[in-house]
Amino acid sequence: MTQDFYLYNTLTRTKEKFEPINPPNVGLYVCGPTVYGDPHLGHARPAVTFDLLFRYLKHLGYKVRYVRNITDVGHLEDELADEGEDKIQKRARIEKLEPMEVVQHYTNRYHHFMDLLNVLPPSIEPHASGHIIEQQQMVKDIIDKGFAYEINGSVYFDLQKYNSRYGYGTLSGRVMDEMISNTRELEGGDEKRFPLDFALWKKADATHIMRWPSAWGEGYPGWHVECSVMGMKYLGSCYDIHGGGMDLIFPHHECEIAQSTAVTGKPHVRFWIHNNMVTINGQKMSKSKNNFITLEDIFTGQNELLEKAFSPMTVRFYMLQAHYAGTLDFSNDALKAAEQGLARLRKGMQNLEKIKSSEDSTVNVKVLEKKAYDAMNDDMNSPVILAHLFEGTRMINAIQDGHERISRKDLRQLRNFMHAFSYDILGLKPEQEQVSGDEGRSGELIGLILQLRQEAKERKDFATADRIRSGLAALGVKVKDTKDGYEWEIG
Amino acid sequence: MTQDFYLYNTLTRTKEKFEPINPPNVGLYVCGPTVYGDPHLGHARPAVTFDLLFRYLKHLGYKVRYVRNITDVGHLEDELADEGEDKIQKRARIEKLEPMEVVQHYTNRYHHFMDLLNVLPPSIEPHASGHIIEQQQMVKDIIDKGFAYEINGSVYFDLQKYNSRYGYGTLSGRVMDEMISNTRELEGGDEKRFPLDFALWKKADATHIMRWPSAWGEGYPGWHVECSVMGMKYLGSCYDIHGGGMDLIFPHHECEIAQSTAVTGKPHVRFWIHNNMVTINGQKMSKSKNNFITLEDIFTGQNELLEKAFSPMTVRFYMLQAHYAGTLDFSNDALKAAEQGLARLRKGMQNLEKIKSSEDSTVNVKVLEKKAYDAMNDDMNSPVILAHLFEGTRMINAIQDGHERISRKDLRQLRNFMHAFSYDILGLKPEQEQVSGDEGRSGELIGLILQLRQEAKERKDFATADRIRSGLAALGVKVKDTKDGYEWEIG
Repeated sequence: MTQDFYLYNTLTRTKEKFEPINPPNVGLYVCGPTVYGDPHLGHARPAVTFDLLFRYLKHLGYKVRYVRNITDVGHLEDELADEGEDKIQKRARIEKLEPMEVVQHYTNRYHHFMDLLNVLPPSIEPHASGHIIEQQQMVKDIIDKGFAYEINGSVYFDLQKYNSRYGYGTLSGRVMDEMISNTRELEGGDEKRFPLDFALWKKADATHIMRWPSAWGEGYPGWHVECSVMGMKYLGSCYDIHGGGMDLIFPHHECEIAQSTAVTGKPHVRFWIHNNMVTINGQKMSKSKNNFITLEDIFTGQNELLEKAFSPMTVRFYMLQAHYAGTLDFSNDALKAAEQGLARLRKGMQNLEKIKSSEDSTVNVKVLEKKAYDAMNDDMNSPVILAHLFEGTRMINAIQDGHERISRKDLRQLRNFMHAFSYDILGLKPEQEQVSGDEGRSGELIGLILQLRQEAKERKDFATADRIRSGLAALGVKVKDTKDGYEWEIG
Repeated sequence: MTQDFYLYNTLTRTKEKFEPINPPNVGLYVCGPTVYGDPHLGHARPAVTFDLLFRYLKHLGYKVRYVRNITDVGHLEDELADEGEDKIQKRARIEKLEPMEVVQHYTNRYHHFMDLLNVLPPSIEPHASGHIIEQQQMVKDIIDKGFAYEINGSVYFDLQKYNSRYGYGTLSGRVMDEMISNTRELEGGDEKRFPLDFALWKKADATHIMRWPSAWGEGYPGWHVECSVMGMKYLGSCYDIHGGGMDLIFPHHECEIAQSTAVTGKPHVRFWIHNNMVTINGQKMSKSKNNFITLEDIFTGQNELLEKAFSPMTVRFYMLQAHYAGTLDFSNDALKAAEQGLARLRKGMQNLEKIKSSEDSTVNVKVLEKKAYDAMNDDMNSPVILAHLFEGTRMINAIQDGHERISRKDLRQLRNFMHAFSYDILGLKPEQEQVSGDEGRSGELIGLILQLRQEAKERKDFATADRIRSGLAALGVKVKDTKDGYEWEIG
């Protein structure tokens, strides 16, 4: 059924046919969160994007080893200058906790919210702080290869030397000379031979808590080293796919390529895939603009930008409505629209279970299924897939209304197709089906009882009407008579 | 309200008054799972035991830093001889996975089941493999202090030398000379100067996957080093409480004390607390005896020793029915009894919300509350606490039945007491409250509707009776008239 799967490779700026290096195995590495704050939309988008890729690769029958890291050390406030306080240490200082308590708390929160979004756990979730020795080893290797230098207990990557040998900036499309002229005077640049050189290992000053002994004295790894190290440790020196947010292309992924290439002499990744950013009402999300929305805000409705709470599956649906490579503007209205779209799809999925087959078909399931696979194979075009799923729900409704007919074989195929795409690939699970089903049922049962009470009143059977009211009260349902009829509430 | 809290200290074999070294902070370290298999009853018991301790310490107002580790390296098949394959590597070989995929999978499973058991996550959950450099540092420190020697790329602890200086065996009550005469000829003992010496660092042979560079060549840490290292890293060189299963006293905890003492010259833990083991129908649980029960088995009922599934809260209740220091025999009947006990307690908690206060009290809440705290303060005597909670439910029922009265102030105190002990301290959360509450309500609403239908039939109002039947049918409720009245089902 499936054909060639094409993915847009940031490195080559073309859609390329995906073929694993070592089929049926696929190695996938994705940059995970720096765990110093509550998960927000900026965490959800890469998680959902690469969950879609992970799910589809598995659907295609590959054996995927998906590595998504936890950054718990080395990510400094000023990423470009390699200066400032460690983000986690800063949070620990503010909250009066040991840094690893901060890491544990926000890692647990991240897992919780990813679970709610139906994001599958990766095969391995390595921590940067859990691979210090491996990072030190890579730093040594880079020094041995002549692409790094030690100064005052810190080690920096020698970017000019690397650039002259391998060329730097291919992924981001930047040219060294332009970068230099655009570089502001960087703080702490004194130590660096060249302003764009980046830290592989930083000397820990007296106030730094997260520190380890090394050949260069006590210190901690630079931010970029961890991903080179953990990707290659678990997926080999050259693996299939590396993903992450577009904001990571420069400098993080560019530096990662430089580090790995410096050691092995060749690039370590075949496909670089990047999701685009989330904006809020057209603006970049930032704490200073006070338009910063956490996932908890959305799921509880506790944010002034939101009218009400939206469910995790609504958020997932909303993200899938845009192609991962386009920006995604977040707003209360966009979520309301996504909620309606999801409800329509779910209604279709429910009707799918009810429709009956006929002797023959007037619908073409095969073509519909092919179009959905074509969209998925065209760089994971999830909005187009959703359009085809809606075509599927229209087909289902037309069959239910008797305007179309479907054969037994086609109905089986339609069910397989709708389930595979809605549930397995897009990951839109039926949400708290039990509870809402039951809540809905209680409400409708109460409605039925109150109609009976109304009828009793109309025939002047007040004894029955009162009995119904007290019967409901015993079950916690309060009934209030109004001039238009009645209202009720549970509580 | 609370008085002195006494805990049985394995080290001194007495109940000692608990006082933190640095109040209001408490440092608590507990040996977590070796993640190479699905979580079973043997995992649940220490988790629930030390969750009770963690909850109570927090209830007492302490600021607790609870560290529970994940052992993902260095735990060999033959623990005493320091020989055999790494348990995780063996599982990885069998399942054809990278060892860290095995670690991730079973860590996720462990978290999932601990969540179901309402076991709170620890403040920090460090991985052994994430602290290799720190373990190497401790091994170096022990060598520097003269209590370890290197041979053929492995490092062993010099137990005779340590024993003559500090004494070995205090925790387990073993005497070195007796241990020697009881020691069977240990495989691989050639390298060791003395048969009871234990590995701090093991040379990795060619087939060993999990390996790191070190001053002694490529290898991996011995099993005991991780807990000394991670406890002292996150809780300091001497901290309040170390917990674990009784089976870990020797050799694991004994070796841990030796390692830490060798470095600092003094013991690193004030209180050693150990939970006893789980037996199954009177026998030790083991895979070879085929009486091995995983938590999933219990929660789904998929095990030949079980008649049916039991809920996580039933398992928790059943564990709390025994004092942590006694053995706990597991059987289908024991779980059935626990299920009934839990249902009785829950019924009492529900009635507690319904009872009304009077002008005065004929019950003594204060004495009841004091007895519960006394039991908790007496080495966490959870079975006695449960007995007092049942006394509370009898009190509630007597008030509800009008045999006793309770004042407004006492009712508030009774609610605070019952909630604090049932929910906060014992951690017996109302299970799937939303769903069952709603399921219960649907059932009762249907009952009410069907009574109304019965009355309609009795007054020969068959139109209404039919309307009710079709109204229910539209909501998925099937009604069947029987000679005794009617039956109904949802579906």
